Amino acid sequence: MDFREELKKKAAVTEEALEHFLPPPDAYPPLIHQSMRYSVMGGGKRLRPALVMAGAEAVGGNVQNVLPAACALELIHTYSLIHDDLPAMDNDDYRRGRLTNHKVFGEAVAVLAGDALLTLAFRLLADCRCPCPEDLVRVIVEVADGAGTFGLIGGQVVDTFSAGETIDETVLEYIHRHKTGALYRVCVRTGAILSGAKERELASLTEYSDYLGLAFQIKDDILDIEGDEKLLGKPVGSDQKNKKATYPSLFGLEKSREKARQAADRAQEALSIFGSEADFLRGLVEFTINRAF
Amino acid sequence: MDFREELKKKAAVTEEALEHFLPPPDAYPPLIHQSMRYSVMGGGKRLRPALVMAGAEAVGGNVQNVLPAACALELIHTYSLIHDDLPAMDNDDYRRGRLTNHKVFGEAVAVLAGDALLTLAFRLLADCRCPCPEDLVRVIVEVADGAGTFGLIGGQVVDTFSAGETIDETVLEYIHRHKTGALYRVCVRTGAILSGAKERELASLTEYSDYLGLAFQIKDDILDIEGDEKLLGKPVGSDQKNKKATYPSLFGLEKSREKARQAADRAQEALSIFGSEADFLRGLVEFTINRAF
Repeated sequence: MDFREELKKKAAVTEEALEHFLPPPDAYPPLIHQSMRYSVMGGGKRLRPALVMAGAEAVGGNVQNVLPAACALELIHTYSLIHDDLPAMDNDDYRRGRLTNHKVFGEAVAVLAGDALLTLAFRLLADCRCPCPEDLVRVIVEVADGAGTFGLIGGQVVDTFSAGETIDETVLEYIHRHKTGALYRVCVRTGAILSGAKERELASLTEYSDYLGLAFQIKDDILDIEGDEKLLGKPVGSDQKNKKATYPSLFGLEKSREKARQAADRAQEALSIFGSEADFLRGLVEFTINRAF
Repeated sequence: MDFREELKKKAAVTEEALEHFLPPPDAYPPLIHQSMRYSVMGGGKRLRPALVMAGAEAVGGNVQNVLPAACALELIHTYSLIHDDLPAMDNDDYRRGRLTNHKVFGEAVAVLAGDALLTLAFRLLADCRCPCPEDLVRVIVEVADGAGTFGLIGGQVVDTFSAGETIDETVLEYIHRHKTGALYRVCVRTGAILSGAKERELASLTEYSDYLGLAFQIKDDILDIEGDEKLLGKPVGSDQKNKKATYPSLFGLEKSREKARQAADRAQEALSIFGSEADFLRGLVEFTINRAF
């Protein structure tokens, strides 16, 4: 499998589905729908939807059936970025090389657009075709938990309030596991559960996604130091500017690279029960720690 | 039935359930959980949960089974108030006689607490016991639609951006039907659908809740002019201050009272297919247009 080709293909499928699931830009009231579309259709690697699809594929599921869920997870990711960028939070002017939502539409609309994307995400989840409605309800519970205060939002809170503080590895891991890891885990599990995964498969995929999320975040920290602004589409050095604890700030660059490699190896090991149907997930690990953006 | 006694009883049941469903205040990270609790446990009439329960009762359902959904709708209402009060939106310092969430916890936490309550709401919905999981999925779809850009958020957007503008009755009705009405409708329908309502019952309850919502909002506009600040727990005259179009500003006080009475009568008529099991819904109409708070 040519991983980069497959990632592009999955991103294209996602973009088409997002275009379909988002209300049209002229739907009343147009301002909010334009604001939602501005951020959702503003690029990005579409890693989370790819993870949902790959979770389905790994257990022999059908990608088409999990597309609404794949888009739902991308909407949750996008909403969290819009709110994260607000002046009261990280106060970022740029995201993926474009002005942030509140810089274009104002703060009020940015808050509401985030709210609307989160709401639409649950609407899309409920739209999934799933042979067993109990599994669909289980997925909604897991997504809400992963996006809530014991997941994504919890990580966001600790991240925001530890800026400028001295934190240790435990807190740093908490932030990463919750801010990024929780949704990664939910993505892979969502695709798998909706495709009728066995509990043993789910357990392996969960371990995989936890290590993948860790590897991703360490690499993100590294790129914030040595990455190329043009490739990243955002200024580097923002962690240092915001006095955020990162892997490199705690352990230095070399040791951080080592930790990323270790996490990547454990992610690969977790996939040992799967055959070639998990090749995309394998490729994603290597892509994650070798990427330049 | 003593309506006020029954409303108090339902509010007490709601408070106890909310206390149970909200994460404890010391759960990590405590700040976000304290912020969520501050706003949710800060009083209020608990009308929306009462509507969910009454929707269940009207079709012979069990209140206990719909309690998580009743709380979910209250959380959605609370999240919308927290975000609505933000400096970028209505910039209100007080709500129900207490400082608003962002005045106590800061803007960043207030944004995240709202996000967290919306997320938890969908978690609670998925927790409902329902004889038919398809009905549960239908409820999740309806709640997401009622809370989204074609419901609550749509009303919020038009309300925010029409402040200071000259608007006509069509826009005013749009705002009220969406900002308040959409959730009212969803509450009654949620309780009824989860209790196995027939489509004919649902149609009547939907008509009821639409007129109830309208009566409620007109009365709200009237109270903002002639209400007692101490009873309301918030300053009066804020609509005028924010140059918001209201029923009294468009039609005058007397004609507004008449319109509220007409909406109330049509709400009562919509209940004609029900017997005494809908008495709470009947009492609520009279309470709505006669209330002083």
